[in-house]
Amino acid sequence: MLKQQDKRGNLIILSGPSGVGKGTILSALMDNYDDIHYSISATTREARVGEEDGEDYYFISEDKFESLVEKDDFLEWAQVHNNYYGTPKKYVEENLNQGEDVILEIDIQGAQQIKEKFPQGVFIFLLPPSLEELKSRIHHRGTETEDAIQTRMKNAKKEMNKVEDYDYAVVNDEIEEAINKLEAIIIAERCKVKS
Amino acid sequence: MLKQQDKRGNLIILSGPSGVGKGTILSALMDNYDDIHYSISATTREARVGEEDGEDYYFISEDKFESLVEKDDFLEWAQVHNNYYGTPKKYVEENLNQGEDVILEIDIQGAQQIKEKFPQGVFIFLLPPSLEELKSRIHHRGTETEDAIQTRMKNAKKEMNKVEDYDYAVVNDEIEEAINKLEAIIIAERCKVKS
Repeated sequence: MLKQQDKRGNLIILSGPSGVGKGTILSALMDNYDDIHYSISATTREARVGEEDGEDYYFISEDKFESLVEKDDFLEWAQVHNNYYGTPKKYVEENLNQGEDVILEIDIQGAQQIKEKFPQGVFIFLLPPSLEELKSRIHHRGTETEDAIQTRMKNAKKEMNKVEDYDYAVVNDEIEEAINKLEAIIIAERCKVKS
Repeated sequence: MLKQQDKRGNLIILSGPSGVGKGTILSALMDNYDDIHYSISATTREARVGEEDGEDYYFISEDKFESLVEKDDFLEWAQVHNNYYGTPKKYVEENLNQGEDVILEIDIQGAQQIKEKFPQGVFIFLLPPSLEELKSRIHHRGTETEDAIQTRMKNAKKEMNKVEDYDYAVVNDEIEEAINKLEAIIIAERCKVKS
């Protein structure tokens, strides 16, 4: 009768266009809510000052990374600026098997890869209140040239159509409200009757 | 882009075996949460002292009730002790069309009728922590004979299997927790991307 408590954990995928605030929302969620595990990525890039292995990333060698790719040990992986980044399956699987939820934050391409390997995941798309607001947020970061911002905006418009492939869409307008919705989704998914 | 806010409201069906605490949970939810409409039933029985038409029930004549049944104006209806009870479609549809959620509390037979007419509803099954606990709750009401309790328990066991037809299952162990889960489900369902 209490079946829904014996089941596997859920893999929650938080995605959305660059600049929408995935990182901010996720750290706030993790601060308030200790009932979920954050999936740590593996990378071949050097650790920056203050970054810790097994906390910020798993820092591994290129050889190690490539052997993990060959063994199909990543849920998704990508090469960015000559470095590899990937989501190790092992940590995710171990927690899910223990009935624990795992959340990961990932760009839209990465989420698509995960959907192919793990369609039973809970896919959440974080939306900006508007494209104008997204542009203004990227501007405020102040880290990018006008050209780079234009490119990002073009990509964002294309990426926005992918929302149809997701289970849930959350508008990141008021951050508190977005976090509440994310929490609600996680709680509701635990109550789902799965056939 | 903000598509999920333009959509129709959800019809939330809260069901579960008799004695599980549906009414208590629902009144507590309605007290805390004014963002949802409670669907009022129509009945042919006499109003009791203190009951108000359009608040507790719509009190209507048998002729009127039968003509509504003929016009297929109920989401579900049943005859109990020579009185009719039913869920009028009109109020539900009007609110859903305005993008408002509607919740209704109903026994398992009624929920099955609604599922046939309204499969897109959100079906939530309220479970007792255990059958023992259910029995003790019915005992505590003190309104029933031992025989009646036995019959209820036999029905409850049968009804419990129906949980597989529901979208969500919530265990009514701690009432606060059950209400939180119900709220989470309502919020999460509003964030769903519907195809």
